[in-house]
Amino acid sequence: MVELRDLSKEDRLHRMRHSAAHIMAEAVLELFPGAGFAIGPPIEHGFYYDFDLPRPLTPEDLGVIDERMRRTIAADHPFVHSEAGKDEARRLFAEQPYKLELIDGIEVDRVSLYQHGEFTDLCEGPHVERTGQVGAFKLTSIAGAYWRGDEHRPMLQRIYGALFETAEELEAHLERLEEASRRDHRRLGRELDLFSFHEEFGPGLVYWHPKGGRLRTVIEDFWRAEHYRAGYDVVYSPHIGKSTLWSTSGHLDFYKENMYSPMDVDGQEYYVKPMNCPFHIQMYKSMTRSYRDLPIRMAELGTVYRYERSGVLHGLLRVRGFTQDDAHIFCRPDQVQEEISRVLDFMVFFFGAMGFQDYHVYLATAPDKYAGSREDWDMAQEVLRQAVEEHNLPYDIDEGGAVFYGPKIDVKLLDVLGREWQCTTVQFDFNLPQRFDVAYVGEDGKEHRPYMVHRALLGSMERFVGVLIEHYGGAFPLWLAPVQATVIPIADRHIEYAQQVVDDLRAEGLRVDLDDRGERMQAKIRDAQLQKVPYMLVVGDREREAGAVAVRQRDGGDLGALPLFQLIDRLKDEVADRS
Amino acid sequence: MVELRDLSKEDRLHRMRHSAAHIMAEAVLELFPGAGFAIGPPIEHGFYYDFDLPRPLTPEDLGVIDERMRRTIAADHPFVHSEAGKDEARRLFAEQPYKLELIDGIEVDRVSLYQHGEFTDLCEGPHVERTGQVGAFKLTSIAGAYWRGDEHRPMLQRIYGALFETAEELEAHLERLEEASRRDHRRLGRELDLFSFHEEFGPGLVYWHPKGGRLRTVIEDFWRAEHYRAGYDVVYSPHIGKSTLWSTSGHLDFYKENMYSPMDVDGQEYYVKPMNCPFHIQMYKSMTRSYRDLPIRMAELGTVYRYERSGVLHGLLRVRGFTQDDAHIFCRPDQVQEEISRVLDFMVFFFGAMGFQDYHVYLATAPDKYAGSREDWDMAQEVLRQAVEEHNLPYDIDEGGAVFYGPKIDVKLLDVLGREWQCTTVQFDFNLPQRFDVAYVGEDGKEHRPYMVHRALLGSMERFVGVLIEHYGGAFPLWLAPVQATVIPIADRHIEYAQQVVDDLRAEGLRVDLDDRGERMQAKIRDAQLQKVPYMLVVGDREREAGAVAVRQRDGGDLGALPLFQLIDRLKDEVADRS
Repeated sequence: MVELRDLSKEDRLHRMRHSAAHIMAEAVLELFPGAGFAIGPPIEHGFYYDFDLPRPLTPEDLGVIDERMRRTIAADHPFVHSEAGKDEARRLFAEQPYKLELIDGIEVDRVSLYQHGEFTDLCEGPHVERTGQVGAFKLTSIAGAYWRGDEHRPMLQRIYGALFETAEELEAHLERLEEASRRDHRRLGRELDLFSFHEEFGPGLVYWHPKGGRLRTVIEDFWRAEHYRAGYDVVYSPHIGKSTLWSTSGHLDFYKENMYSPMDVDGQEYYVKPMNCPFHIQMYKSMTRSYRDLPIRMAELGTVYRYERSGVLHGLLRVRGFTQDDAHIFCRPDQVQEEISRVLDFMVFFFGAMGFQDYHVYLATAPDKYAGSREDWDMAQEVLRQAVEEHNLPYDIDEGGAVFYGPKIDVKLLDVLGREWQCTTVQFDFNLPQRFDVAYVGEDGKEHRPYMVHRALLGSMERFVGVLIEHYGGAFPLWLAPVQATVIPIADRHIEYAQQVVDDLRAEGLRVDLDDRGERMQAKIRDAQLQKVPYMLVVGDREREAGAVAVRQRDGGDLGALPLFQLIDRLKDEVADRS
Repeated sequence: MVELRDLSKEDRLHRMRHSAAHIMAEAVLELFPGAGFAIGPPIEHGFYYDFDLPRPLTPEDLGVIDERMRRTIAADHPFVHSEAGKDEARRLFAEQPYKLELIDGIEVDRVSLYQHGEFTDLCEGPHVERTGQVGAFKLTSIAGAYWRGDEHRPMLQRIYGALFETAEELEAHLERLEEASRRDHRRLGRELDLFSFHEEFGPGLVYWHPKGGRLRTVIEDFWRAEHYRAGYDVVYSPHIGKSTLWSTSGHLDFYKENMYSPMDVDGQEYYVKPMNCPFHIQMYKSMTRSYRDLPIRMAELGTVYRYERSGVLHGLLRVRGFTQDDAHIFCRPDQVQEEISRVLDFMVFFFGAMGFQDYHVYLATAPDKYAGSREDWDMAQEVLRQAVEEHNLPYDIDEGGAVFYGPKIDVKLLDVLGREWQCTTVQFDFNLPQRFDVAYVGEDGKEHRPYMVHRALLGSMERFVGVLIEHYGGAFPLWLAPVQATVIPIADRHIEYAQQVVDDLRAEGLRVDLDDRGERMQAKIRDAQLQKVPYMLVVGDREREAGAVAVRQRDGGDLGALPLFQLIDRLKDEVADRS
């Protein structure tokens, strides 16, 4: 038998986490003698087990279960492997319907069992040798989970645990978790009043509140201005289109499960758009295009609607309606390399402005069946690879991972915690230009097929703002902050001057609020800090007389009194620098 | 018998136009002996008659009909009135199924007939005494029209004529028509490549092309900036919502015929939104609101979809999907007067910036049945009336013309040709706040119902841009022009410098294109003028050496050579002035 210490760290942790799941199950059985057991695998950072229990678990239950687990660990029982025939196993788990269903699904004759102490589980293993070897753990949370992930089967209760070899590693992980929880965009979205969801009127649909709306507007304004500067045209297309559009595009054949069911208008079927592409193609086709007109770069902040199971919806990151920062580039073969390179330049510039420096790229290549010619795919893959390498972006190749219509690169942003977030995608399309017969007149006077590249930088406003909130933990740099400064009068007699400061700053295009509540100054400063407002401008007698404001920063910095004109210069510089 | 000259001008024209319709019908009968006759009334500016003919009319037919009409007029036949029993009338019109149907619909026993020459029509009159008295006319157009306006009945051919007392008046009218046609936004939308419709993928849905998109973006940027300045918050809401939202709001009861049929999502019905209001109410309700938080002004450029019969769709002015510049103001009773006044201030400012100075206001008051109390209605109507008077806006009262949920004012803009365009609406709502139980906590610590005012300034982006195109005839002021200047190199050797000029101007935020086609300079200048580009910047050897451009204006003005920096200052000033 292999000794635990001879295994790789990954294998050791796998066994320890799996064993802890068994130990937890035993503890739950002691607490709820009739409990039903489903499955309990090791996972990244820990383990879980799904139970069918007579009542909802409470946080107090976790304490009791934890205590019993530690007792079992201290007892240092051996894990004992055995095998049994299926009938014998069925007798053993006669009271356990989920185990019986699992046994029915096993294709071999004999099933594998693991026992520690009095507790036996249907299990392939492997496990640690003794319960004393499971390392440092903590039960972290309770969640609902459908049996076999199927929403038509019973809802079970899942207990999650975190587990590492050492207490220090566990502690570091829990701190990361806590940091991630502090940065959770759903929580900050509520606390900073940025957006809301209203399940009763449709899950996965975002309501952007005033402050979230400001953030979105700032990003969209920047996006539009930079797209114009980069040679894109901004267009607007409808949110609905007749079935004829979606049958020509092929969406009704290969994308229907992501689309909402049709509406009837005058006896015709209309669909809410899941993509903007077919509309942009119509605009391209609204006149004859010459080789001199290319490249044509059409960009749109286009809101699309796609079906997602309600179980996978997650804050702003996975929604049912989202605004893609979409663009389609129509170009000649001799332009495609430069166009792809420009997209990556643009991406690096854009995300740099937003505070992101690091990326990981995934280049997906041809699957077995695909549209277009082998030559086109080879060219396109090579163009993508070269562009990624020229930009010194680390990348992996996802062999055969592309969708049938063209190769693509997916770019994941790395945030300040080192987490990866899928945002940018750059994708060739050898399908739609053919389906819609997209063409340009070449120098030879004949019709040619342009290349068509789909491209989203942010992915969507929803997703990107979610990432941005987590990256900054809600403490946005000045140029993005929904409220850039709060003016705080010390007493009621300073409100008039405070309002004048607000007006002066607003006239300069700064986003400034007045806190004229009847609270104490210190409470107002604390509230503004909790709201992560970059600057607090306190005004009292002295400031009023001097035409100044006393400037505090959200991180506790105190800049003292500054003449108003000097503050305005400072803030405008900081906004212009996007620092 | 009354003599024609003793009548009012209006009555005279009514008779003349009606008589001309008869004369035209006679001419058509001569041309098409088996023709079916429907109706032929006088209308504003002229007359028409609907015919059932064996083949489509051509413009050449109009010439022949015109000629025959003038012969009848020269013959100066008297118009003779008579009466007949219904059976006699049926015999007389035995070959005329439309007339027979009209006779069936007449409730009195005897029908009225008018005859001139050999032609007799079923007609109540009155007419001029003799065909020689009909004045100056011109047959202007041919159109399709359903019998009785019912799309399930036969499609007839309608001939329109314009008619006035004098040739001078007719001429002036035709010139106005021609001017309106030159300004027709559908024609200019095509010629200036601003937008398109694609009937086959859904009528009434606008595709905003790059240049239209720029115009829209300029207006939207201005709109958002000014709304922030005016104390509004900009929000974003979803385009779809579950039936629960629309049943609570009452839209499924009283607005369903304007809504598209539902989509099925997870067994629930979802509707594309016809209005933004219920979403804004949810945002209002997402936290407890205190009397100190009011007024709350929530604004959104929200795209809504409403069913319109395809027959009434008209360019950008009547569409199926449109982006309302919507806002909802929630306020206390003591704030409502100032809020309404601010809305009108804002409107006057906003339209002033867009080049409109004149308005006509319609104040619609309580219908028989209404939501809310009589006191609320009286107060609201009085507030609206006072605000309109304070702003010195001419107005009419539309007694009983409000919808059940609250009184409103509709404001029509007057364009440069004096035409009225419905844009702004300001509307009280005593229904939704109650249905959604909207409240604020008053100074007394108790819950109160705020007033809710719906308000759109432009009406919609689509409609307003349509009006704007017609108002300016496509020659937008510099700050709105999609392309503000075209740089025209005289020869290929000047392209490099021309590109530098383009880059320098773009770096200043100006919208500038390069015309580097192989055309002659004069042709390029003409094309830019046809595209109504405000400035043409010609560059040759001299300009390149001097760091200058030769500046032409679209109206033919020639500013001579200007150093580039001086031109930039001039253009930026002109943009800032919105002149």
